[in-house]
Amino acid sequence: MKEIKIQEVMPRDGLQNEPLFVPTEKKVDLINRLSQSGVSKIEVTSFVSPKAIPNLKDAEDVMTRIDRNPNVIYSTLVPNLKGAERAVQCKVDEINLLVSASNTHNLENVRRTTSETFDNFNKLIDYLSDYDVILNGSLGTTFGCPFEGHIPQDRIFELVESYLKLNVKGITLADTTGMATPNQVYDLCSELINRYPEANFTLHFHNTRGMGLANVLEGIRAGITQFDSSLGGVGGCPFAPGASGNICTEDLVHMLHFMGYQTNVDLDLIINISKQLQDVLQHELPGQIIKAGKITDLHNSSISN
Amino acid sequence: MKEIKIQEVMPRDGLQNEPLFVPTEKKVDLINRLSQSGVSKIEVTSFVSPKAIPNLKDAEDVMTRIDRNPNVIYSTLVPNLKGAERAVQCKVDEINLLVSASNTHNLENVRRTTSETFDNFNKLIDYLSDYDVILNGSLGTTFGCPFEGHIPQDRIFELVESYLKLNVKGITLADTTGMATPNQVYDLCSELINRYPEANFTLHFHNTRGMGLANVLEGIRAGITQFDSSLGGVGGCPFAPGASGNICTEDLVHMLHFMGYQTNVDLDLIINISKQLQDVLQHELPGQIIKAGKITDLHNSSISN
Repeated sequence: MKEIKIQEVMPRDGLQNEPLFVPTEKKVDLINRLSQSGVSKIEVTSFVSPKAIPNLKDAEDVMTRIDRNPNVIYSTLVPNLKGAERAVQCKVDEINLLVSASNTHNLENVRRTTSETFDNFNKLIDYLSDYDVILNGSLGTTFGCPFEGHIPQDRIFELVESYLKLNVKGITLADTTGMATPNQVYDLCSELINRYPEANFTLHFHNTRGMGLANVLEGIRAGITQFDSSLGGVGGCPFAPGASGNICTEDLVHMLHFMGYQTNVDLDLIINISKQLQDVLQHELPGQIIKAGKITDLHNSSISN
Repeated sequence: MKEIKIQEVMPRDGLQNEPLFVPTEKKVDLINRLSQSGVSKIEVTSFVSPKAIPNLKDAEDVMTRIDRNPNVIYSTLVPNLKGAERAVQCKVDEINLLVSASNTHNLENVRRTTSETFDNFNKLIDYLSDYDVILNGSLGTTFGCPFEGHIPQDRIFELVESYLKLNVKGITLADTTGMATPNQVYDLCSELINRYPEANFTLHFHNTRGMGLANVLEGIRAGITQFDSSLGGVGGCPFAPGASGNICTEDLVHMLHFMGYQTNVDLDLIINISKQLQDVLQHELPGQIIKAGKITDLHNSSISN
């Protein structure tokens, strides 16, 4: 029985797309409950400019108010040196760096070329050498870019090697706008695991085009055991209004459990927290299990015999 | 490159769940366009009592008014002898029979035990022996029943054999309420193909719990090449209000095409027909591709270089 680690990204990747500000105490309460659910990591927030992402303007407050479970890695996205300073002040466990595989996407996202972003990582890592913090490197648009289209495998190898040269071994392959196909996931992940056995890969999928859970299974088949997902499937992409967001944590855990995988996650509890999230966000979430129930939730028949 | 046949069930399985009556001429127009899209089969309607399913009360009108493409099999669901008489009068190509693997579900659905349903099939097939019509046998709740839960494989073997004894070789394994898991699909389908090489299996999935496309890929891996799907993902289940319906035709074709499979379906055309369906039904459809676009639909960057 294979063990799969579930890494919850709702508080950052999910909430950054929400139109209404979620009050700090509601974020803290959701994260505290998630800390008890069995997920291995929580991406708590992002230390970006409050102007850039208003919903995460309370990054320090959230990060310092939550109850920390020693079995959970509390990670935050950090875009620059200022963000790193804020993150270490809050004693985060992990800092998540982000660069897009697509140069055009990186320019759109942070107004820097990918090589400028790596120069920036250098300074940031120099600064962080004094602190006890894990580094994770995310690679956006790994499976396709909404501007450039397909990203050649060689480009991914080059960027994975750039992270490894910085001694960043936790590497998240992110399908930022939901363009990955299952066979592409299998092929690329098999090749990466083969080439870079020292790396510790995570897959981060969006369900934008309905292939999210199929992509997870092909990732597992290739040997990946860590997956990002978002409670209720919140998240999303400005290019696909109305489409699904990140793959949904409870839908993912539900599928994996009933396939015989072990995730350490309490399925009933996360379904419950997802319903709480739906109340907080005041709109329907893309997740299916909160609507349909588990496959073991049976109904009473009206037939007497 | 493997060829996969796409069988469109929107006009029957999709529309039977719609609250508002879809005018006959709109049904005919949608079916006529689907006939030109490359799907191999269309389930046009059901010859049930108009009281049971009001949206299909115009079964004869729809079936006789559509333009028939000789490359498409026009199928209709038939629950009884009266339905069979109506179907042959309309010169359908195929009659689709339905029994649930779960006895409780069959009682709920048609107020008959499964063995009473097979007795009924006997009479119906006697009557149809004078007509040139293909027979297909659907097996509802194959992958689980919302009342009984898991259905043992032996029960599926028994019912597949019952169909084969009646010389019904086209057999549709239907996941009526979206309970199938990918490994279950692979295991059962591999076993069925191995045991009954004379049968011609179709898989019919609902995306109720988000596993629909993952289940298709495991069906293909087991050797199945025919899949039912519904335009826009319409359809659904009274036990899962708000959850996804049948797997979505354009999402399925999109995934298969970009994985290198051949389906004969014109993807752009079915996306277009799905948008037309959304206008007709006047509510948002569960399909993702009509919202997100194809993975090859790129966007212009605001960055000049």
